[in-house]
Amino acid sequence: MVNSSLSVSVRALLPLLLAFLGGFSIPAMAGNVILIIGDGMDDNQITIARNYLVGSRGKLLVDRLPLRSAVQVVTVDEENPQRPLYVADSANSATSMATGAITSPGRIGTTAGSDKDIVNLVELAKQHSIKIGLVTTASITDATPASFYAHVNDRGCENPSAMVDFEKYAGVIVDCSPDLKANGGLGSISEQLINSGVDVALGGGMKHFTPDAEGSKSSVLTLATQAGYTVIGNADQLAGDHGGKLLGLFSPSTMPVRWHGEDGRSAEKPETSFMNMFHPMLGSVTYPEPMNCEDNPDYAGMPSLASMSKVALTELTADTNTSFFLMIESASIDKQAHERKACGSIGELQQLDEALAVALEFSDANIDTLILVTADHGHAAQILSERTIYEALGVPIHSPGLVARIKTPEGAVMTVNYATNNFVSEEHTGISVPLLSNSVGVGKIPAMITQPEIFTIVKDYLLD
Amino acid sequence: MVNSSLSVSVRALLPLLLAFLGGFSIPAMAGNVILIIGDGMDDNQITIARNYLVGSRGKLLVDRLPLRSAVQVVTVDEENPQRPLYVADSANSATSMATGAITSPGRIGTTAGSDKDIVNLVELAKQHSIKIGLVTTASITDATPASFYAHVNDRGCENPSAMVDFEKYAGVIVDCSPDLKANGGLGSISEQLINSGVDVALGGGMKHFTPDAEGSKSSVLTLATQAGYTVIGNADQLAGDHGGKLLGLFSPSTMPVRWHGEDGRSAEKPETSFMNMFHPMLGSVTYPEPMNCEDNPDYAGMPSLASMSKVALTELTADTNTSFFLMIESASIDKQAHERKACGSIGELQQLDEALAVALEFSDANIDTLILVTADHGHAAQILSERTIYEALGVPIHSPGLVARIKTPEGAVMTVNYATNNFVSEEHTGISVPLLSNSVGVGKIPAMITQPEIFTIVKDYLLD
Repeated sequence: MVNSSLSVSVRALLPLLLAFLGGFSIPAMAGNVILIIGDGMDDNQITIARNYLVGSRGKLLVDRLPLRSAVQVVTVDEENPQRPLYVADSANSATSMATGAITSPGRIGTTAGSDKDIVNLVELAKQHSIKIGLVTTASITDATPASFYAHVNDRGCENPSAMVDFEKYAGVIVDCSPDLKANGGLGSISEQLINSGVDVALGGGMKHFTPDAEGSKSSVLTLATQAGYTVIGNADQLAGDHGGKLLGLFSPSTMPVRWHGEDGRSAEKPETSFMNMFHPMLGSVTYPEPMNCEDNPDYAGMPSLASMSKVALTELTADTNTSFFLMIESASIDKQAHERKACGSIGELQQLDEALAVALEFSDANIDTLILVTADHGHAAQILSERTIYEALGVPIHSPGLVARIKTPEGAVMTVNYATNNFVSEEHTGISVPLLSNSVGVGKIPAMITQPEIFTIVKDYLLD
Repeated sequence: MVNSSLSVSVRALLPLLLAFLGGFSIPAMAGNVILIIGDGMDDNQITIARNYLVGSRGKLLVDRLPLRSAVQVVTVDEENPQRPLYVADSANSATSMATGAITSPGRIGTTAGSDKDIVNLVELAKQHSIKIGLVTTASITDATPASFYAHVNDRGCENPSAMVDFEKYAGVIVDCSPDLKANGGLGSISEQLINSGVDVALGGGMKHFTPDAEGSKSSVLTLATQAGYTVIGNADQLAGDHGGKLLGLFSPSTMPVRWHGEDGRSAEKPETSFMNMFHPMLGSVTYPEPMNCEDNPDYAGMPSLASMSKVALTELTADTNTSFFLMIESASIDKQAHERKACGSIGELQQLDEALAVALEFSDANIDTLILVTADHGHAAQILSERTIYEALGVPIHSPGLVARIKTPEGAVMTVNYATNNFVSEEHTGISVPLLSNSVGVGKIPAMITQPEIFTIVKDYLLD
């Protein structure tokens, strides 16, 4: 890779060159990293969003980044950590990005099988006085952000109440007891956040801060204030210079998404006619009516991912002598895909693209800023032909799952298929995911890496 | 893109540099292009093959290429060519790569709606005495190879008999009449191949050459011999120096694939218990038994894609004064995915990786050779969790489609889901597809392009 070495050398020589040419003092070349994660944002999701937002021949901002790589998403079986699994969740995959380790689904910053804490980026950065920002549209205690600062045996251990009686699904209890402080653990995720030294944390999840902390008569929120955090709870409070540490919690749990389907519709089952009862190739099929994407009224008053990202950058750069690491997550690309809501995922991918615009504007003025955009794992959604390619046969061919047919602004209809299971929530898939970067990453990132190598890239750039 | 310009300048200066240093004559810097197409080979298919062939943390050869880009697959409605469609077929997508145009599904080298011929890479190359090779595991008249040399209104018009009575599916007749020579057309695809000037054509499809040519008492095969082709029909005849033009047809239509599932099994329906009849969340579900991949006995005696590629390279470089364009297609990644045969697709992706090894070995010795690896469109297969992520609920959650559960050599089980329709053949999907290149492509290919831009990249490198 001739280019890599050339690019690295040019960058290494730049301060000396500037000093030589200008005779002025060498600026601190602290490297900043902005890691943007689209939860569940595989190339299906990006293509779906592109088709809707800019047309099939258009380019999103994420498409215009100069470097593309791909990421092998790797995880292992909790029962036998030598045995690979082929589909990840946000907990194990964010743990890979935050620690460089491979763990089992559901784990946050802990090892598969043995439940040992793994050093994360926040802890490393703190040792080097690097500032940390975390921005998400999920709860700030949700699996993706949590993996950067916390260590628990299960992603469900989000707050002090959940530590003793969290029900994951109907009747399925998460055992958080190993992480109770009383048992020598670090406490719930929200308690760990306020002790982590994270400088800026913005997202949803207020409900995880209102319970009393373990062994305390004060809520986690009260303790956050005592730990030096300015706590804000709505978009208006985002404006202005806050100074010190900032904790913004803009909704009880996941923040409402920007868009939904017409009249709140999600994907629906193609309907077959009477005769189809007798044989799958008899009768006819009616696909769901095409729909527009609409504003979701619940989103009113929410800060956008871009506006939260902008505030985070302002706070993190108040002191110009330190570098920073900022993680920005658009969480509900995934959450809306679980619910088969194509318009929801599209709107949240638009939010990610807008946050990327904020990051690129910053890096234009601060050329030592590495911007990475990636996803944590693949998801269910697929784009199908508007009508089956076997339409000419005149038989009722249709998806065995649910489909959303979206009217696109370029005058066509996009069929999004959800068919990973017969349950109320779709499953993740095991496809490799994209990794993109701004020009700073060119020559530093191979064309294909494993997910834990993202940790290495971030760490090396931050601490180099 | 600092790297791009550096890379380009270094390459441009290389001949001068060599001349200056060595005092010897400048070698002809004719640029060769090897375009390797995995039919339907989206990142799902590559991840499935990687997990099986080298393990989830391993790297295929295709993963080791230094440059990765992504391709927007673009197609339009035949009835209204201004209106985009979001899912392509191999005909329109190969036409994009071969001509730089966007057309409608099913069309080979002709415009959507208006059926005009579009100049293709073979015609352009012939004007510049560039040699042409086409290698495929499909019929050499199938949509992907055909798009590089032929012009017909439908991919079904493969041979003189098909021109008058080709039945696409039960009762659906393809109208090839506009392409009959009697109607001013160029005749069927096989007839067009032998008039195209293609130097080496290797693959399946003998049955498309045995009918008599239109208006002739000679078969297309006889006419091929008269046109200067050495015709061969089995792997033994591949060896040796053939001289002149070479036509190899190793099976009647698509060549048999290397692997199939244990006992020929493909994906199967999860079976639910009696109580499930009353409600989808009642009773239990039994997933299909995990299976190994096995050698397909029908493959015995077939030349591999790699061996055909090697012979093609030998033939194309017999005259060292000319450059060449070689298209290599692993066709049945797609065809096996239509049939829900995960092992079949894996084996054919292995064939592609082996053909890439041949290409890379050639480019090591011939540094002016651009190697591109891409896919034409996305496909149905997805990797699902070994068991549903909602397993703890104890309800019968399963794919609504068919699943193949493959035992991987690294000791795990990979679940491949096929759920785009309820018919006997799965559908393509609209995901963007990967484009990879050897070091020659670094700095020449943006991180995201539209499919017709592949034509521009190939043309510019060949004719520059």
